[in-house]
Amino acid sequence: MKAAPTTHTRPRVVIVGGGFGGVNVSRVLGNSDVDVTIIDRTNHHLFQPLLYQVATGILPEGLIAPALRRVVQKQKNTKVVLGEVTNLDLDARTVSAHAPDGARITLAYDILVVAAGATHAYFGHDDWEEFAPGMKTLEDARHLRNHILGAFEMAELATDPAERQACLSFVVVGAGPTGVEVVGQITELAHRVLPSDYREIDTREARIVLVEAGPAVLGPFDKRLQQYTARILARMGVEVRCGTAATAIDRYGITVRHDGGDERIEARTKVWAAGVQASPLAKILASASGAEIDRAWRIMVEPDCTLCGHPEVFAIGDMVSLNGLPGIGQPALQEGKYVGKVIRARLDGDANVVPFKYFDKGSMATIGRTHAVARSGGMSFTGITAYLMWAFIHVLYLIGWGNRFGTLYSWGRSLWFTKNRAHRTITLEQAIDEVGSRSSPEGNATSVQATARHASKAP
Amino acid sequence: MKAAPTTHTRPRVVIVGGGFGGVNVSRVLGNSDVDVTIIDRTNHHLFQPLLYQVATGILPEGLIAPALRRVVQKQKNTKVVLGEVTNLDLDARTVSAHAPDGARITLAYDILVVAAGATHAYFGHDDWEEFAPGMKTLEDARHLRNHILGAFEMAELATDPAERQACLSFVVVGAGPTGVEVVGQITELAHRVLPSDYREIDTREARIVLVEAGPAVLGPFDKRLQQYTARILARMGVEVRCGTAATAIDRYGITVRHDGGDERIEARTKVWAAGVQASPLAKILASASGAEIDRAWRIMVEPDCTLCGHPEVFAIGDMVSLNGLPGIGQPALQEGKYVGKVIRARLDGDANVVPFKYFDKGSMATIGRTHAVARSGGMSFTGITAYLMWAFIHVLYLIGWGNRFGTLYSWGRSLWFTKNRAHRTITLEQAIDEVGSRSSPEGNATSVQATARHASKAP
Repeated sequence: MKAAPTTHTRPRVVIVGGGFGGVNVSRVLGNSDVDVTIIDRTNHHLFQPLLYQVATGILPEGLIAPALRRVVQKQKNTKVVLGEVTNLDLDARTVSAHAPDGARITLAYDILVVAAGATHAYFGHDDWEEFAPGMKTLEDARHLRNHILGAFEMAELATDPAERQACLSFVVVGAGPTGVEVVGQITELAHRVLPSDYREIDTREARIVLVEAGPAVLGPFDKRLQQYTARILARMGVEVRCGTAATAIDRYGITVRHDGGDERIEARTKVWAAGVQASPLAKILASASGAEIDRAWRIMVEPDCTLCGHPEVFAIGDMVSLNGLPGIGQPALQEGKYVGKVIRARLDGDANVVPFKYFDKGSMATIGRTHAVARSGGMSFTGITAYLMWAFIHVLYLIGWGNRFGTLYSWGRSLWFTKNRAHRTITLEQAIDEVGSRSSPEGNATSVQATARHASKAP
Repeated sequence: MKAAPTTHTRPRVVIVGGGFGGVNVSRVLGNSDVDVTIIDRTNHHLFQPLLYQVATGILPEGLIAPALRRVVQKQKNTKVVLGEVTNLDLDARTVSAHAPDGARITLAYDILVVAAGATHAYFGHDDWEEFAPGMKTLEDARHLRNHILGAFEMAELATDPAERQACLSFVVVGAGPTGVEVVGQITELAHRVLPSDYREIDTREARIVLVEAGPAVLGPFDKRLQQYTARILARMGVEVRCGTAATAIDRYGITVRHDGGDERIEARTKVWAAGVQASPLAKILASASGAEIDRAWRIMVEPDCTLCGHPEVFAIGDMVSLNGLPGIGQPALQEGKYVGKVIRARLDGDANVVPFKYFDKGSMATIGRTHAVARSGGMSFTGITAYLMWAFIHVLYLIGWGNRFGTLYSWGRSLWFTKNRAHRTITLEQAIDEVGSRSSPEGNATSVQATARHASKAP
């Protein structure tokens, strides 16, 4: 017979966030005698590792973002609420949120799991966000795609060679896996996909720079993989600049600092892949519980992922500081499964839980279209082996066969068999919103040149 | 030897609009000794007949909107400009536009083809647009999708039964092919796709109304097909209301007038499929040339699609009034090919052109998931025959094999083999933007109820 530890009715488990962590908690509890509520501010479960492929036109967003309701559809004890959590009251044991209909929702819980993830960190330069967008949500990926495609459109129309070169210059800040993957796909666009589409510009003349403050690309990987990655990127035409930090970013370019001093790069497109910080809910949790947060705002948790003094509150995933685990999908996923099991054990009256132990399955990154690096089980892989491992693992972890086959089909089209990108629709307004028009006086000056250029074909 | 009729250099053909009309003009001229420029305010060639499938989560937008540059990639004499045309000067023979970089562009032409299409018409009630969006562009389809999905989310959270019913009420105004297709897919969502996703609501209780001012659905089709369509829609659960006109539309509902007087329907979602009017460029052309426009702002053209007194200016497609042709793809496409041939003949010194003659290939519409009606060559078809014709023709007219197979794959997933819709990502902000929160006092009142409801599960 099951004991209900905290109340005499069905215990209520509230999960904040429908990412890898939250979904896996709910899955473990799918057949348990509890009421589970997942609250998220989007309606989808996002597969972040492939977000850069949405940002570069390879995948449509639906394939990596199945509806959260559909993901937990078969768990009849689980319901999903679309809402943004605004406060966590650990004394009253309630979660406050606002919902799309303007109502404020209060969810009472017996057990709370906070799995709200992370967002970009600009290290005190929040004004850079406007000019160097990051990539954590589908909206981010869409904005970035509009920006990149808009920059090529502006280059095609530019009459001033310096302006044209600035539109054709792309700087990615941060050479972790995300930075390497994004810079690789921007290079693919410029060198392989777009050249035949434009008449006035040669997109292969694009300047593509990868800036990294640390001494090497792919910091957490071993030296051989770092060197391989740097070599492949250089061969693709990427300027790899390690030991180089961003010191200023504005609409028109970026200033970087290295041994040789400061350097200005005129570039309309800057992508931020340099740092993340925990969801603001980590701070709320910290001040409510007295737990500490680290400099990336991640909250310190006990070995069983609970908050100190609050055995009924768990925190997992990218918003948590636990044994220095990396901010990738696997820790969140494994912590989610672990917390689900801890909750289930408690329901069964078993209070003895072993601490969370991370099983490092390895990590990997793609470089352009056919190269990748991977490390797993003490071994490291490069080239086509790593690439096939990457493709297999990523398709495997996608949710649903429809999305898996759809993704393989899209890869076939965009990466393997043709030189196209199917998902690259933008409008004039989007190009203007993202890349920005030149300031008025410049704009006027250039309009005369534009006229002259177009008119020069007249007799 | 080719004669260049208007100038002694390569004649410049400027095409405004990259839809069915514009693209087909450029294709015919692909190997001719002319410079072709297509200017459009988006970067894609939109296949409008399947837009309703983007609005209802069946297709990702990329599959029906290939990059315009890619569509004309092999035509080396054709270039594409992303820009919005602001003026046409028939005396100076120039097109003025603004471009994403803020510059004003002036394109000089020897031959001008204006193929700028049509937009929604609200018959003097432009304020309705905010509450009853139409569907002509990808942006429209995205907004509509966010709205429909947001309404179901709000229904799930609503605590007031009347509010919940208003969120679950959908009114489509206009029962032409677009209205019938949209209402059919909203019904599929409510009855087949979404029921298992929600816990608090039964989406099958949605009220779905199709309002038509005329005496029957699918006005241009014959009586048998009209009756068949009305019967299938009724069987699916759609309230079909003919002889009923919208008289007022606001955020919360719609008032319609019929024989029995005025009736108010509380419905958060209203879709406008009742009328179109020509692009504003038709008015500009009319005042520049003295040509007449009809009450849908469509410009009258000569039998060879030129403007009266301006043999160097063609107008085609949905913005043109010519022999009462319907505003669908085929007339635009055929006019585009015709105008391309006229221009080519002129280049060859052949001034004798036969007037444009429309070849009516028929028309068709789907009703829900497996039904359709079609008329072609004096015959009419219903049921699975019409449905297969519809599927075959629409896949055939898509541009590119990648998009054709991708569309078949998406249809298999969403319509034939599973009960899912892959492409339905929204965020809380999008739901609020589209459907709108309730006004503040109401919102506050309901928040208490929401609290009470959620708390009611507490001990």
